[in-house]
Amino acid sequence: MLFPHLRIHQIYGANTDVGKTIFSTILCLTNAAAGNRVFYLKPVSTGSLVDSDHSHISRYRPHGSPIDPECIIRMNEPVSPHLAAQKARQVISDENLLGRMRDYFQKCAKRNNKLTGLGAVYVETAGGTLSPAPSGTTQADAYRPLRLPVVLVADSKLGGISTTLSAYETLHTRGYNIDVVLMFKDDYYQNHTYLERWFKEKNIPLTAFDPPPLRPPRNLDEKDEMNMKHYYAQTASTSDARRVVATLDMRHTDRVQTLETLPDRAASTFWYPFSQHKNIRSAQDLTVIDSAHKDVFTTAKSQPNNPSLLSPTFDGSASWWTQGIGHGNQQLAAVAANAAGRYGHVIFPLAVHEPAIELAERMLRTQGKAWASRVFFSDNGSTGMEVALKMALRKTAMLYPSGEKPDLEVLGLAGSYHGDTIGAMDACEGGVYNSAVEWYKGRGAWLETPTIGFEDGHLQLRLPWSDRQPRFSDVENAYNLSKRREGTLVERYRKHITSRIQELVSTGRRFGALVLEPLVLGAGGMKFVDPLFQAILVEVVRSSSHLLLPPTAKDATLPVIFDEVFSGLGRLGFATSTSVLGVKPDIAVYAKLLTGGLVPLAVTLASQSIFDVFIGDDKASALLHGHSYTAYPVGCAVANASLSMLEDLLRSDTFEEARREWSPSLRSMPDSERVDVAAPSSLWSRSFVKSLSTLPSINWAMSLGTVLAFEVKDTDRGALSGYGSSAAERALAPLKDFGYGAPPDALNMHLRTLGNVGYLITSLNSEKSMIRRLEGNLLHCLEAYSSHF
Amino acid sequence: MLFPHLRIHQIYGANTDVGKTIFSTILCLTNAAAGNRVFYLKPVSTGSLVDSDHSHISRYRPHGSPIDPECIIRMNEPVSPHLAAQKARQVISDENLLGRMRDYFQKCAKRNNKLTGLGAVYVETAGGTLSPAPSGTTQADAYRPLRLPVVLVADSKLGGISTTLSAYETLHTRGYNIDVVLMFKDDYYQNHTYLERWFKEKNIPLTAFDPPPLRPPRNLDEKDEMNMKHYYAQTASTSDARRVVATLDMRHTDRVQTLETLPDRAASTFWYPFSQHKNIRSAQDLTVIDSAHKDVFTTAKSQPNNPSLLSPTFDGSASWWTQGIGHGNQQLAAVAANAAGRYGHVIFPLAVHEPAIELAERMLRTQGKAWASRVFFSDNGSTGMEVALKMALRKTAMLYPSGEKPDLEVLGLAGSYHGDTIGAMDACEGGVYNSAVEWYKGRGAWLETPTIGFEDGHLQLRLPWSDRQPRFSDVENAYNLSKRREGTLVERYRKHITSRIQELVSTGRRFGALVLEPLVLGAGGMKFVDPLFQAILVEVVRSSSHLLLPPTAKDATLPVIFDEVFSGLGRLGFATSTSVLGVKPDIAVYAKLLTGGLVPLAVTLASQSIFDVFIGDDKASALLHGHSYTAYPVGCAVANASLSMLEDLLRSDTFEEARREWSPSLRSMPDSERVDVAAPSSLWSRSFVKSLSTLPSINWAMSLGTVLAFEVKDTDRGALSGYGSSAAERALAPLKDFGYGAPPDALNMHLRTLGNVGYLITSLNSEKSMIRRLEGNLLHCLEAYSSHF
Repeated sequence: MLFPHLRIHQIYGANTDVGKTIFSTILCLTNAAAGNRVFYLKPVSTGSLVDSDHSHISRYRPHGSPIDPECIIRMNEPVSPHLAAQKARQVISDENLLGRMRDYFQKCAKRNNKLTGLGAVYVETAGGTLSPAPSGTTQADAYRPLRLPVVLVADSKLGGISTTLSAYETLHTRGYNIDVVLMFKDDYYQNHTYLERWFKEKNIPLTAFDPPPLRPPRNLDEKDEMNMKHYYAQTASTSDARRVVATLDMRHTDRVQTLETLPDRAASTFWYPFSQHKNIRSAQDLTVIDSAHKDVFTTAKSQPNNPSLLSPTFDGSASWWTQGIGHGNQQLAAVAANAAGRYGHVIFPLAVHEPAIELAERMLRTQGKAWASRVFFSDNGSTGMEVALKMALRKTAMLYPSGEKPDLEVLGLAGSYHGDTIGAMDACEGGVYNSAVEWYKGRGAWLETPTIGFEDGHLQLRLPWSDRQPRFSDVENAYNLSKRREGTLVERYRKHITSRIQELVSTGRRFGALVLEPLVLGAGGMKFVDPLFQAILVEVVRSSSHLLLPPTAKDATLPVIFDEVFSGLGRLGFATSTSVLGVKPDIAVYAKLLTGGLVPLAVTLASQSIFDVFIGDDKASALLHGHSYTAYPVGCAVANASLSMLEDLLRSDTFEEARREWSPSLRSMPDSERVDVAAPSSLWSRSFVKSLSTLPSINWAMSLGTVLAFEVKDTDRGALSGYGSSAAERALAPLKDFGYGAPPDALNMHLRTLGNVGYLITSLNSEKSMIRRLEGNLLHCLEAYSSHF
Repeated sequence: MLFPHLRIHQIYGANTDVGKTIFSTILCLTNAAAGNRVFYLKPVSTGSLVDSDHSHISRYRPHGSPIDPECIIRMNEPVSPHLAAQKARQVISDENLLGRMRDYFQKCAKRNNKLTGLGAVYVETAGGTLSPAPSGTTQADAYRPLRLPVVLVADSKLGGISTTLSAYETLHTRGYNIDVVLMFKDDYYQNHTYLERWFKEKNIPLTAFDPPPLRPPRNLDEKDEMNMKHYYAQTASTSDARRVVATLDMRHTDRVQTLETLPDRAASTFWYPFSQHKNIRSAQDLTVIDSAHKDVFTTAKSQPNNPSLLSPTFDGSASWWTQGIGHGNQQLAAVAANAAGRYGHVIFPLAVHEPAIELAERMLRTQGKAWASRVFFSDNGSTGMEVALKMALRKTAMLYPSGEKPDLEVLGLAGSYHGDTIGAMDACEGGVYNSAVEWYKGRGAWLETPTIGFEDGHLQLRLPWSDRQPRFSDVENAYNLSKRREGTLVERYRKHITSRIQELVSTGRRFGALVLEPLVLGAGGMKFVDPLFQAILVEVVRSSSHLLLPPTAKDATLPVIFDEVFSGLGRLGFATSTSVLGVKPDIAVYAKLLTGGLVPLAVTLASQSIFDVFIGDDKASALLHGHSYTAYPVGCAVANASLSMLEDLLRSDTFEEARREWSPSLRSMPDSERVDVAAPSSLWSRSFVKSLSTLPSINWAMSLGTVLAFEVKDTDRGALSGYGSSAAERALAPLKDFGYGAPPDALNMHLRTLGNVGYLITSLNSEKSMIRRLEGNLLHCLEAYSSHF
């Protein structure tokens, strides 16, 4: 809600009864006197109509004034809106209220243009900043999706410094911009003197006005009205009032200008990751993100039928796969602030603080259950994997006779990705991208993997080394390994893997670890790997020590590293990948979702036997790795809060319903039984995914948890395939920026693609209606693209 | 302030006049009735004595009661304490007030022990949470160093939901624990119903009590007293009141137990960075950090003459060199919360958000001034260096004829350190530690560097390749390169470096970059490198393209990377290292201090000519590096706030004074002239550093900015030297844990050592008195250690 010729400000009070309505009136009158169009909105009003705030405005606006007071929801009981709603048995959701406010603003905006000049809307809230809206949500949270700039009315009474600063902080913590502070002068308590200085440091001007005359007793309403008329005549349009209005105008203009200049500033300053700058044409290609809330960015993009300079854009990559519980989450923000206020950052080696120990214990209790005993912290998936590699390689190197320094490689999967630092890159197969990096040197052997996906509505297993491609009757069966272990594939996989290993070691190659991303190879093209293959791979490796390790190794096995940076922590709808695969790693890495999508953090879990090889007499035998902010309290505290929420979401009704949809056999279980979290599920609807896979332009489509992926055919048959292709980008381009004539429920999407693979990832708490809407948009787009085939 | 047999709670109010005193009285009476010793403290009281809160307690305590009301500062004017202090012309600093409160608590604690049972202290604040203390600091900030657990009194009036939640948030953001919430019932507004549910989700019990009788008119004081006596008889010691007291007892006991168990939990769960776990004996070796404030950790350590379970420990490594403006900084916490609330994290490639663009532009304007044109974001110094290496190596590789793939190494300094990911490690010299890492492979040649330090009170230049070791008259001269360029060393350095380069390339080695840490090699042993040597090194490399680059390179020069992760951003008292060295890099990396010591973030700056080589027609020629949380808004916003503060601090009176001390020629300049920020300075006193260097146990001592370093002799002449030594650790051991009999100003220190090098690092705003105290402690300790020599 940002219009070029209409500025909207929300009036929040430091407390109830601090003069919000009087200041709204002063602002309205000052604007009107300058000839501007003014709108006043009280979204929710409680108490008698006569006493209501918008009646107040009506009463004191001059004849023929352009001031237009309006109210959306009126309730008679003079109590907090949530109580009034309860008493009136009215259910008013935040979405409903916000939708009606948006309609109102758009109506106002249409009445303003270049010729009418800059109009103004003042939106008066009820009570204090955190007084409940009718739904019971606190106002500052309920109105947050609009993120209107704020006029804060400070409290001039005893205690008012505290209520004012507190109110400011609550708004600031929710990401609001506070443009000006207004208040009444009180020469005895002098709050304005203290507050003016305080806000000046934040670059927020505070203006103190003389207080209104005392209200005469009830039966002298006329007298009161005369007094107030006189008061407004004295305060509105004074130089102080005009200065405030000018400041509000200026902040609005600045904001519009900043949004307009950001693309050029970015294009000439940033060096973007994974981006060819030659192709960046500033404004068209760069997404200006003004703020974000739940699943959407508020972006500087125009939208059909909406004069607003800002519009919602769905965060289609879940912000590089980090987002799990929505942007701007107030609980995470509060937890981050608490840890920052309590500790800042404190050094970690040989130190203990509560957020770190809670996180470590939680990780061992959940992801590391029954196999891990130690937790190592670092900053991101790539560093977490470097740590994992250092752990595994040492473990294996120590199995060789002392003095022997084997040149250890990793055994990995073709199409894996483990991060961008050189060590993590070296644990991945070479390719057009990796190989372009000077110090990259793929140190491993890469196994091709069977994958799973819907093709033409049928769930297909694709074996890269065989022509016979079996089908599954359903997703549920594909992920039920205990059943599948009775099938013939087990032996075929076992033989295939064993012969590959024999082949590799026969040329003298030595391996230090098996490294794999469980269930889905993410950056390698969203490959849904056959879980049975990964399970058998781990088993074969563990039973092939005679091939993989030196005779001195005795009972030891090659360490197995699970890179769960993308696939772990509920991203795929499973509480753990070990519950699906039925095998456990020796080392596992978690990041991205670990902090629910707020700040960087990674943990590497290790088994006791890995840890033990680093026990020695000198420091050189310890694990020599550490970053400055290792286990920083803010990161750990946010992770603890996120993991709690993610666990709850995986057990929520939404996910249980998704499990019943995707794992139909669960339906026959009684409702009271807890749904098995190892059963596959997806927030995307099964019929939609099947339909998608039947489109002529789609090779396959697949979904688990929050992830939907599909491979797009290229219109040019001679074009590059795989990661080098730009088919997905081109096919999905219309979704990035819907033009006029788009379907009424169209929502712009911010998308990342992986060559010929397109994907969309939601949060674990994305709303069903939102996902259905995305499905509709996607089908609409890909059906049109399919006409080329 | 945490005593085993005395719990202390601070009573905060959601607003003024919400019943803090009445609830204090109820709690006191309930405790007393149960036979516990109770203390009541009103640290600051304003208004008439008769009406004062501690008089209220006195009035209603039973005869012979163990309740002990006390007040530290009394002022008669019934206004906010800061105004009352102004009117009474009293200056009461926060330190003074807190000191007196600490004394009071210790006095109370001495009267409680195992036999007397768990005593209680209730500390009643004035007004709301952010009402000003006498100093003008808001109370929640002023009392923060004590971080007493809180009893929050909620507001039952209209608007009280908002004031209560706001008050809670202000305390939470400052790192307080809120143990219980108390309030009066109001059946009309029903705030307690809403709030009870809200706080329950945070696991904080709320108890609502019947409100006290209405106060009769002034002249009926006796009636009022009777009413209140009756009220207290009805409310104190009820099951509700007893449950509240029991909860407070339990939270206290839990806290004590948690602190006690943390070391064992940590020792069996964490895998610490750079730590040999074999040597960890749980409680003795692990530092439990309960919280942190400014330069000190609050640690679970007992202290001489103080029965508290917690005591301050100076953060001697500035938390691994990250800390610049003090722990628990409220401004940074607020900025972090604001960015979290506004964005959460948003994906970065091809996106723009304000915190990132502001940070990028600021870095180019300051550190990158006149040379850098692009900013790349990553998560820590190590990843920032990997990015720098990818940039530089590509630049150089492109200078070779196409098709030729030279095996590029780096030219570096002996004793450098650039991080722990494999790529960053590979850019460092091998050694006992690096070489233990399996995939490490030093890819470079390493030049020995001349260093500077005080020896026996004289500033010595040490040339590693020569016996003649010249002296400087003063630090100021050593860092004045324009003067030193007239000396004979210039030519000697030039010749030495040129011949080393000739020697290296003659064996066919090819280099991709010159990599150096400007001014100080940090982890390599705090080597203060001669700046002239580094300047000449850069110049020689840039004029040796005929030796270092292929003939196809034309006018190109070998890229120069500055690793400023430790030394940059004011750590050494300089605004930029380029201003000292007089040469500019092509690429530079910043991290650690970048966020002032709160959250991880790194930026890599690059010149236009570096950026240009990544412009091409395909994605493979782009820079292929990126982490999930690249340029995350919280990190960028915190960095913007930190850099502002760091810049201000470098221009502060404290630093200007330090510059005059360390650069005496500045003293002859008029005061009005801005002190040149390229002049060397230190917050450590010059006379102290000189004295330190004269001790028999010290080889050298040196200081710049916030860093003090010194090399300690080993008592065992046969012991390992350098990083392998444990001399510094042993010499400084007494400072870690002062026992009884320590000097009265002793302060425990948390120390990290680098083999035989000890160091202490302060924040840029550490207080002078604190630094003097540390100097005294250090001299005392090292003088004792010197007796072995």
